[in-house]
Amino acid sequence: MSSLKLAAITKTRRTVVQVGEVKIGRDLAVIAGPCSVESEAQTIETARAVKSAGADMLRGGAFKPRTSPYSFQGLGIGGLRILEKAKRETGLPIVTEVLDPRDVSWVAEFADILQIGTRNMQNFSLLKEVGRSGRPVLLKRGMYSTLDEWLNCAEYILSEGNPDVILCERGIRTFETYTRNTLDLSAVPAIRELTHLPIVIDPTHSTGRPSLIEPMSLAAVAAGADGIIVEVHWRPEEALCDADQAMTPAGFTGMMNRLRPLRTFMEKLPA
Amino acid sequence: MSSLKLAAITKTRRTVVQVGEVKIGRDLAVIAGPCSVESEAQTIETARAVKSAGADMLRGGAFKPRTSPYSFQGLGIGGLRILEKAKRETGLPIVTEVLDPRDVSWVAEFADILQIGTRNMQNFSLLKEVGRSGRPVLLKRGMYSTLDEWLNCAEYILSEGNPDVILCERGIRTFETYTRNTLDLSAVPAIRELTHLPIVIDPTHSTGRPSLIEPMSLAAVAAGADGIIVEVHWRPEEALCDADQAMTPAGFTGMMNRLRPLRTFMEKLPA
Amino acid sequence: MSSLKLAAITKTRRTVVQVGEVKIGRDLAVIAGPCSVESEAQTIETARAVKSAGADMLRGGAFKPRTSPYSFQGLGIGGLRILEKAKRETGLPIVTEVLDPRDVSWVAEFADILQIGTRNMQNFSLLKEVGRSGRPVLLKRGMYSTLDEWLNCAEYILSEGNPDVILCERGIRTFETYTRNTLDLSAVPAIRELTHLPIVIDPTHSTGRPSLIEPMSLAAVAAGADGIIVEVHWRPEEALCDADQAMTPAGFTGMMNRLRPLRTFMEKLPA
Amino acid sequence: MSSLKLAAITKTRRTVVQVGEVKIGRDLAVIAGPCSVESEAQTIETARAVKSAGADMLRGGAFKPRTSPYSFQGLGIGGLRILEKAKRETGLPIVTEVLDPRDVSWVAEFADILQIGTRNMQNFSLLKEVGRSGRPVLLKRGMYSTLDEWLNCAEYILSEGNPDVILCERGIRTFETYTRNTLDLSAVPAIRELTHLPIVIDPTHSTGRPSLIEPMSLAAVAAGADGIIVEVHWRPEEALCDADQAMTPAGFTGMMNRLRPLRTFMEKLPA
Repeated sequence: MSSLKLAAITKTRRTVVQVGEVKIGRDLAVIAGPCSVESEAQTIETARAVKSAGADMLRGGAFKPRTSPYSFQGLGIGGLRILEKAKRETGLPIVTEVLDPRDVSWVAEFADILQIGTRNMQNFSLLKEVGRSGRPVLLKRGMYSTLDEWLNCAEYILSEGNPDVILCERGIRTFETYTRNTLDLSAVPAIRELTHLPIVIDPTHSTGRPSLIEPMSLAAVAAGADGIIVEVHWRPEEALCDADQAMTPAGFTGMMNRLRPLRTFMEKLPA
Repeated sequence: MSSLKLAAITKTRRTVVQVGEVKIGRDLAVIAGPCSVESEAQTIETARAVKSAGADMLRGGAFKPRTSPYSFQGLGIGGLRILEKAKRETGLPIVTEVLDPRDVSWVAEFADILQIGTRNMQNFSLLKEVGRSGRPVLLKRGMYSTLDEWLNCAEYILSEGNPDVILCERGIRTFETYTRNTLDLSAVPAIRELTHLPIVIDPTHSTGRPSLIEPMSLAAVAAGADGIIVEVHWRPEEALCDADQAMTPAGFTGMMNRLRPLRTFMEKLPA
Repeated sequence: MSSLKLAAITKTRRTVVQVGEVKIGRDLAVIAGPCSVESEAQTIETARAVKSAGADMLRGGAFKPRTSPYSFQGLGIGGLRILEKAKRETGLPIVTEVLDPRDVSWVAEFADILQIGTRNMQNFSLLKEVGRSGRPVLLKRGMYSTLDEWLNCAEYILSEGNPDVILCERGIRTFETYTRNTLDLSAVPAIRELTHLPIVIDPTHSTGRPSLIEPMSLAAVAAGADGIIVEVHWRPEEALCDADQAMTPAGFTGMMNRLRPLRTFMEKLPA
Repeated sequence: MSSLKLAAITKTRRTVVQVGEVKIGRDLAVIAGPCSVESEAQTIETARAVKSAGADMLRGGAFKPRTSPYSFQGLGIGGLRILEKAKRETGLPIVTEVLDPRDVSWVAEFADILQIGTRNMQNFSLLKEVGRSGRPVLLKRGMYSTLDEWLNCAEYILSEGNPDVILCERGIRTFETYTRNTLDLSAVPAIRELTHLPIVIDPTHSTGRPSLIEPMSLAAVAAGADGIIVEVHWRPEEALCDADQAMTPAGFTGMMNRLRPLRTFMEKLPA
C-alpha cells in the first residue's frame, strides 16, 4: 500500500453516510432500479416495485457511458426530471451517475448520491468536482484498479472537503468469460480493514447474469458489505442497456425476503 | 461453454461424495489442517485442535509443489505415515495432494480424498490416473483457468469411471496484489448451475491473508458452497510453507462458531 | 468485434496525419521528451537533445494524472508556456495531454497533438471535446481495454468530425510484475488489419524499464508500427514523475542510430 | 525476483544448445511443423516444405494435451515413428512434446528436443524427469506464469544436471479476446537480461491468427529472440487441432524470405 497517510485510511471512526433515513455504513443499504431511465412509466413502476420490496434508494442513469458513440446515451436532463418525479412518488432518494465535470453542479440538484462509474474512477477532474459538490459520492472501483489506486481516488474526493464517500466493488476484468467481470468479494473485508469508508457491491455488472445476483448479494452481506446496488427493470428483455442482465421486480422481492434476515442474523452472531 | 455434452454437466441428480460420515454435496464439509506435514507433533496437535473445533477432515501435504526446487518439498511417505497416525488418533479422514501419476496408487492407500493442485489441473496423465484410483478427488481450479476448462478437467476424471469429483475454487490470478490471488466466489453459484458436482472454496491460498479467511468462508456458505478447505497451523509463523498465511487453532475455532450456525440459517431461509 | 460499421474501420485508405513536416502513418514518427515539464532548462535541454538525435516531435506533460492527489500534478499553463518556448527553439511540434473537457479549447492553442491518456480512454466527454478541437489526437489504449473498445473510443472522436486520430499502445495490465505493464505488441498488426488509423507504441510506460525501451522500439518497427512515443529526461533520477524509467539523451541517441536504419530496411524487404 | 541465486541466472556465459548443425543461442533457430502428427503424408510433406523454406528443425506433437478428454489426443508412438521417418527423409531434428514422466525415457529416443507445454510448466515431476533425460528441453512459459516462476522451472531441469534448456514465450492469458493469448514480447529482452538461457517465441499459439504470425516473428527477431517455433500445416483447414491457426507452407516460405535477412541486418547494426 502506498496510501498509508491518506485521510481515507487514517481516520479511526467508521464513516456513516446518511441519506434520508438510511445510514450507509451502519444499516444495510439496498439501492435498486433500472440501468437507465427510459421512460416515466418504466422508472416509476420500477421505483414502486423496489420500494415495496424494501429498497432504500432508487438508482437510474440519465447519462450512460456507452462503449459505442452510436448506442443509447441516456435521456439527460429529461431523465433526471423523471427520477425527481419517481422520488416524489415513492420517497426514495436518488443515486445517479455524472460523467462530466461541467455537469456536476446541476446534476447535484437532482441527485442524493452522485455516482462515479468504473470508467471514470481515475477521471481526476471529475473526482475533484464531486468533491466540491456537497453531495455524497458512490465511487465505483475501476475494473482494472487495485485497492490502493481506488483508495487514492477516494482521497481525491475527501481532500476537497467531502467526507461522504461510499466505495462500490463492481467486478474486475479477468480472463474468465462466463461472468461479465469477476466480482472481487474479498475487497469487502479488505476495504473494511484498510479504511473507515463504507463499501457496497454491485452484483449486476460484476456477474452479468441474473441467476448470480442473489447468491452474490447474500455472500456480500455475509462478508460484511454495507449494502448492494442492483439493477431491477420491470421488463428486462426490453431494456435499452444491459438487457437480460437485470432482475425482475419479482426476483428482487424474493431476494429481499432473504437478504435482510441474513443481515439481522449476521449482526447477532457471537463475536 | 464448449462442455454441453459432458458427464460433468448432463447428470441431473446432484453428486454427493461420502467420506466417512461426511456427505460432501449435502452437509457443509470443513477440511482443515496444515499446508504441509512437518512433524508428528505439529500434525497431530493441529488435527486434534481442528477436530475439537468441528472440522470434518484433515488436510496436509506430504508432497509440496514449490516454485523453487530448493524449497522444502514435503516429507513424502514419512508425511503420509504421520497423516495416517493423525487419522488413527482423531478419526478425521485425510485429504492430501498427489503430484505424480506414478505415485497415485500407493498414495491412495493413505488418502481418503486425493487432491489435485492448481498447477496440475491440466496435468492430464495425473487426472486419468486419479480417475482410476477408486478414491474421491478434490480438483482445484487452475489459477489461470476458465470454468469451462475446469469442468473439462473434471471430465477427464469422470470419464475414467470415477464419479466422486469435488471442485475447489482457490483463487485466480489477476492484477490485484493486496490479496495473493482473487477468490472468484461467483464460481460457486456458477458451478452449481452448470454441474451436479459439489464445490468447496479455499479461503487461504486465494486471499493469502488470515484476516480475510473468515469473511470469505462465511460468504462462501451464504453463496451456497458445499464446504471449505482451510489452512490451520499450530504455530503459523514457524510453518515451512505459506508461513503467516494460516489461521491459528483459536482463530479457526472462533470461525467455526459462526460458520455452522450460518449454514443452518441459510438452509431455513424461505425458498 | 462489435465495431464492424465504425468509421474507424470502414474507410479504405490509410489515414495519414500530417503535423509539421511529419506524416504519421507514412513516415516513422518519433516523439520524445520528458514525462512532465518541470522547468524551462530541463525541457529545452531535453528538446534540443532529442531533436539532435532525430526526434520528430516533443512530448511533455503540463497536466499529470497521478494516482495520489498529493503527488506533483504538473505545472499547468506554466508548463504549456515552456513547451511553447521549446517549440520555438527547436521547431519540434508539441504533443501534450489534456485531462479535462473544460481545458481542451485553450490547451489546443499550445498543442500540435492532444494526448488522451490511458485512464481517460473512456472519458467520453473528453473524447467528444477533442473531437471538436481541430487538433490531431493521440489516443492511448486503456490499460484494461480490448481492441474493440479502443476503436469505439476512436469513433467518439471521428464521429465529431475529427479524422486525425493516432492510436497508441502503451501496455495492458496483467499479472506480470517484472514489467510495469505488458506491452501488447500484437496490437500493432491487429490494429493495422482492423483499421486505417496509424498506431504508435509507448515503450516507456509499458515496460517501466529503460533497458527494455530499445528492444521493444525495434520490435515495434519490425511489426509495422507507425512510430514511438518515448520518455527522455536529461537527468532521469531527478524526474518528478516516473523517475528512473526514462531514457537518457545518450541512450536515446544510440537507439535512434538503429531505429531509423531498421525502418529503412523493413521498407525494402521483398513483399 | 526471488531467483537471484539460481543456476539459471548466475552463469555468466550465454548458453548455446547445439542440435545437429544448429546452435540455439547463437544462430537464429527456426522450428516449424504441424501442431500434431496426423499422418505420414501430412508430416513428411510439411517437413519437406519447411526444410525447403529454410527451417532448422521439425516440430510435431504425438501426444496432445487437449482441453476435452474427447478431443483427438495424438497418435502416440505411431506419431513418433512418423516423425522419425520425416527426420530420415529431410535431416531435420525433431522437437516433440512429452506429457507424462513415465514416457520421458522412451520419447527421448525419438526426440532431439523434448518440449514441455504451457500447461505442464509447473509439473515438477515431469521437469525433473526431463532434467535426467540427456536431451535438450524446450520449456514453454505457463500462460499464467511470471518470469520468476518460469526461471525457477528452468532451475528444476538444470538442477538435475541438464544444462540445455531453451525458454519459449508462447503468450499469457489476459482479458483481450482478439488474440488467443497475449504474446509478451518484452519477455525476450527481459529474459536476456536475467539469464544466460536462449529464448524463442511461439507466434502461433500466442496470437491464434495466421495474419499476425509474420509481424510478431519479425518483431521477435528485432527484439533479440534466439528463434521461433511456428505451426505450418500443408492444409490448415483440415488440421485435427488448431485448425485455421497454422501457416501454409507458402506463407511460411514468404516469411522466411524476410526473417533471415532481418536477423543478418540486426547483427550488423552499430552497437
